Amino acid sequence: MLELYHNHISVCAQKVRLVLAEKGLSWKGHHFDLRRGEHLNPDYLKLNPKGVVPTLIHDGTVFVESTAINEYLDEVFSEPPLKPKDPVGRARMRVWTKLVDEGIHPATTTITFATTFRGMMLQKSPQELEDHLRRIPDLEKRELQRQLIDKGVDSPLVVKAIKVYDKTFDSMEKALADRVWLVGDRYSLADIAYTPYLTRFYDLGMAEMWTVSRPRLADWFARIKARPNYAMAITDIVPGDYLAKLKAGGSAAWPRIKAMLRPV
Amino acid sequence: MLELYHNHISVCAQKVRLVLAEKGLSWKGHHFDLRRGEHLNPDYLKLNPKGVVPTLIHDGTVFVESTAINEYLDEVFSEPPLKPKDPVGRARMRVWTKLVDEGIHPATTTITFATTFRGMMLQKSPQELEDHLRRIPDLEKRELQRQLIDKGVDSPLVVKAIKVYDKTFDSMEKALADRVWLVGDRYSLADIAYTPYLTRFYDLGMAEMWTVSRPRLADWFARIKARPNYAMAITDIVPGDYLAKLKAGGSAAWPRIKAMLRPV
Repeated sequence: MLELYHNHISVCAQKVRLVLAEKGLSWKGHHFDLRRGEHLNPDYLKLNPKGVVPTLIHDGTVFVESTAINEYLDEVFSEPPLKPKDPVGRARMRVWTKLVDEGIHPATTTITFATTFRGMMLQKSPQELEDHLRRIPDLEKRELQRQLIDKGVDSPLVVKAIKVYDKTFDSMEKALADRVWLVGDRYSLADIAYTPYLTRFYDLGMAEMWTVSRPRLADWFARIKARPNYAMAITDIVPGDYLAKLKAGGSAAWPRIKAMLRPV
Repeated sequence: MLELYHNHISVCAQKVRLVLAEKGLSWKGHHFDLRRGEHLNPDYLKLNPKGVVPTLIHDGTVFVESTAINEYLDEVFSEPPLKPKDPVGRARMRVWTKLVDEGIHPATTTITFATTFRGMMLQKSPQELEDHLRRIPDLEKRELQRQLIDKGVDSPLVVKAIKVYDKTFDSMEKALADRVWLVGDRYSLADIAYTPYLTRFYDLGMAEMWTVSRPRLADWFARIKARPNYAMAITDIVPGDYLAKLKAGGSAAWPRIKAMLRPV
């Protein structure tokens, strides 16, 4: 039996749901409302000491870290295979799946927070806001949120984040020059790793980053969205009110964020 | 043919050399003096766009990112195997190898810089120092260095870094409670991933972190150092003058750094 502790909108949970759907696996979900801190309860922290989603339970064994979970699922449920056939391809795939966590993941947190979550935070009283910040155990994350609440899109972190996106999209466009998927001609864990990040950018109303000047990436994302696993893991699960907030916050900020990039 | 672009003391290059040695593979080395910026030449940047070491060339094909390189080497040169036999073990191994880059790697940069490289930087004139900082392309890395040069061990980054080490060593001690190596009873890529970081800490004269209160970790590291691949990949390669600088800088700072931790 497969159980997934997850959240509808978490990018890392989406990565794992995409694999589960692609392999036609059924699973029992335990959904956490992250803003209410449901994932920080002591029982969950025993399963996942970092207090993040997702956590997968397979026949009683606990698995954490979405990249490792996806490799595991592909080893144990081999059809359809989600790794390239050859070791060179697998090495390329692992560079893609690794680089997500260094660049586009924190950039996504920054852009989502500066454009959307910030507005929700500013509805709190100063005391409530301070209490919220004090509850964040990681000092660095706390200061990051403080800066983004304080300065919003004017934070230098936003310039940095959009440049990470720009560079990532460049790499993807370049990779897709001579192949259908990011690594060779087979849809793989590399494509899956980037799907939630393009999705978030799209939901924020910022898809111009590929619709205007990156035709191969635009085509890749259209093909990604047409796959049955996309509907099962993302479209059918992500709630509409959340999408409306993202769209409103992102679209309002987009002209200023876009101006931070070189002219496209 | 195997070629490795590397540096004697780079932790990530050491990780790959440990695998090459363990598998009995011969390789041709291209050594870069990182402080002189030899790795930032345009030809190398074509191989490795991030401008970091190591890069492996295998029969003309280029591989980057030490974690992905090590998985590749283990797939292509299967003896002795460096992954657990079962998928659960491999998932555990991949969590260990992944977490290196999130925690102990940047912590190592901080501690080495604050205690040792800072002294070399302070020998420059203010203008030379500013020129050096301006040459660092990544804005975040540049500001990190500036803060560490400015404040040394007094930087809040050092407190954070030593706490990362403390937590990592706790996890390792705990993992070793019921097994010989980090993942099960086979020496694996997980053990290899942590070897250069314990080595650096040892070289900085800070081994008290495990000799006093973490007997299993102390035993693990003793066994690690006794392996033939350790001599081939690390001891025989790292130059003595560098070791003397690390020992001097680290030992001088250790009492203050140690005081940042709870009493052991």
